Amino acid sequence: MQERPFDLLNKAIGQQVLIRLKNGTDIRGKMTAFDIHMNIVLDSAEEHEDGNLKTKIGTILLRGGNILWVAPA
Amino acid sequence: MQERPFDLLNKAIGQQVLIRLKNGTDIRGKMTAFDIHMNIVLDSAEEHEDGNLKTKIGTILLRGGNILWVAPA
Amino acid sequence: MQERPFDLLNKAIGQQVLIRLKNGTDIRGKMTAFDIHMNIVLDSAEEHEDGNLKTKIGTILLRGGNILWVAPA
Amino acid sequence: MQERPFDLLNKAIGQQVLIRLKNGTDIRGKMTAFDIHMNIVLDSAEEHEDGNLKTKIGTILLRGGNILWVAPA
Amino acid sequence: MQERPFDLLNKAIGQQVLIRLKNGTDIRGKMTAFDIHMNIVLDSAEEHEDGNLKTKIGTILLRGGNILWVAPA
Amino acid sequence: MQERPFDLLNKAIGQQVLIRLKNGTDIRGKMTAFDIHMNIVLDSAEEHEDGNLKTKIGTILLRGGNILWVAPA
Amino acid sequence: MQERPFDLLNKAIGQQVLIRLKNGTDIRGKMTAFDIHMNIVLDSAEEHEDGNLKTKIGTILLRGGNILWVAPA
Repeated sequence: MQERPFDLLNKAIGQQVLIRLKNGTDIRGKMTAFDIHMNIVLDSAEEHEDGNLKTKIGTILLRGGNILWVAPA
Repeated sequence: MQERPFDLLNKAIGQQVLIRLKNGTDIRGKMTAFDIHMNIVLDSAEEHEDGNLKTKIGTILLRGGNILWVAPA
Repeated sequence: MQERPFDLLNKAIGQQVLIRLKNGTDIRGKMTAFDIHMNIVLDSAEEHEDGNLKTKIGTILLRGGNILWVAPA
Repeated sequence: MQERPFDLLNKAIGQQVLIRLKNGTDIRGKMTAFDIHMNIVLDSAEEHEDGNLKTKIGTILLRGGNILWVAPA
Repeated sequence: MQERPFDLLNKAIGQQVLIRLKNGTDIRGKMTAFDIHMNIVLDSAEEHEDGNLKTKIGTILLRGGNILWVAPA
Repeated sequence: MQERPFDLLNKAIGQQVLIRLKNGTDIRGKMTAFDIHMNIVLDSAEEHEDGNLKTKIGTILLRGGNILWVAPA
Repeated sequence: MQERPFDLLNKAIGQQVLIRLKNGTDIRGKMTAFDIHMNIVLDSAEEHEDGNLKTKIGTILLRGGNILWVAPA
């Protein structure tokens, strides 16, 4: 059976991911939850800018509507 | 059972949270209510800019559509 | 029972509120009506910029989609 | 019974209104029709900028999605 | 019976209209068709900028979502 | 019977069209398919800027939501 | 039977595609999955800017709402 885009999120549960937001910010962390709107929860999240660590955030809930792309890190 | 993103909001009721808005503003306060649109009410809310307190607002209702992310503080 | 975000609007009927719009403008006035889209009517509304009164508008209907947050004043 | 936001539009039929658009433009005119999307028709409409008359437009249909607020003038 | 906003579009079929787009461009032409999304077809359409003719386009289909307002010319 | 806006797209199948995107880019090519969201496929598509050919793209699927207007060329 | 826009995506499964995002970024890679929202998964994805390779990303899930166009490469 052909894969569906959300299969990638399912397999990424418990893994490190890199999330690029629409405003250009990168958020890295361990994905623990997502829903059909692509709302995503990360543990040990960090905000990166131009590849450099900017802020350690901890647990974070990202609104799906602001996400440009998600990549397993 | 796997967690869902809104479980994070449920657990944050009565706790301090940091909310980053789409326009870059940070709002900090104690979360007292939310709904499925991610509309959120905070008590003792404060507006922060670049990490500094800008305005004490008190009770505030934030529209979910303007929220970039929510993090328990 | 847990509060819901719109309870804040219900309690603010007849009260002064401060509304921050997405474009950064502040509107102050006495709230007389709202609906589920967060469309809001204010009496004796005033437009404020950087904390200073800019224009007295009178009665005003604000479209919910443009609202960043609402705070009882 | 509590008022609803659209009651303001109903009462404004046949009256002068000031409409602020999202792009900052003001349109003044006599409201003759509206619908649930807040699409609005004005007669003798004029475009104002910074309080000065810029263009006389005549009859105009404004898309609701572009409206910031409506105020009886 | 009270008029509805789309009555203006019905009456404008076969007439010259001026359409202001969200990006500030003006399109003039003879309206031949529209639908409930306010998608509009014009014949002999011209793009105007600051009141001057910029390009003759001919027949054009405008997406309703980009329209700021429509005025019979 | 009155024409509907999508009749223009039906008649343009197999024809050259000019598509103006919201970001100001022009895409020219031969239309081979469209759907109700105004998603459009062009063959031999070219990106034009200020009237000059910028890139030859070949076959392209354009998302309807980014389209400002479509004109048979 | 006339083609539909998503037929192009079906045929591109397993092929190299070039995806232009709304923010002007180009993403190249091998398409492995898509859904009706045009969410797309690429393998061996690369971010290109002005035609030059900027970052190797690997597997990536792109949100459909941010896509301007998709072209088989």
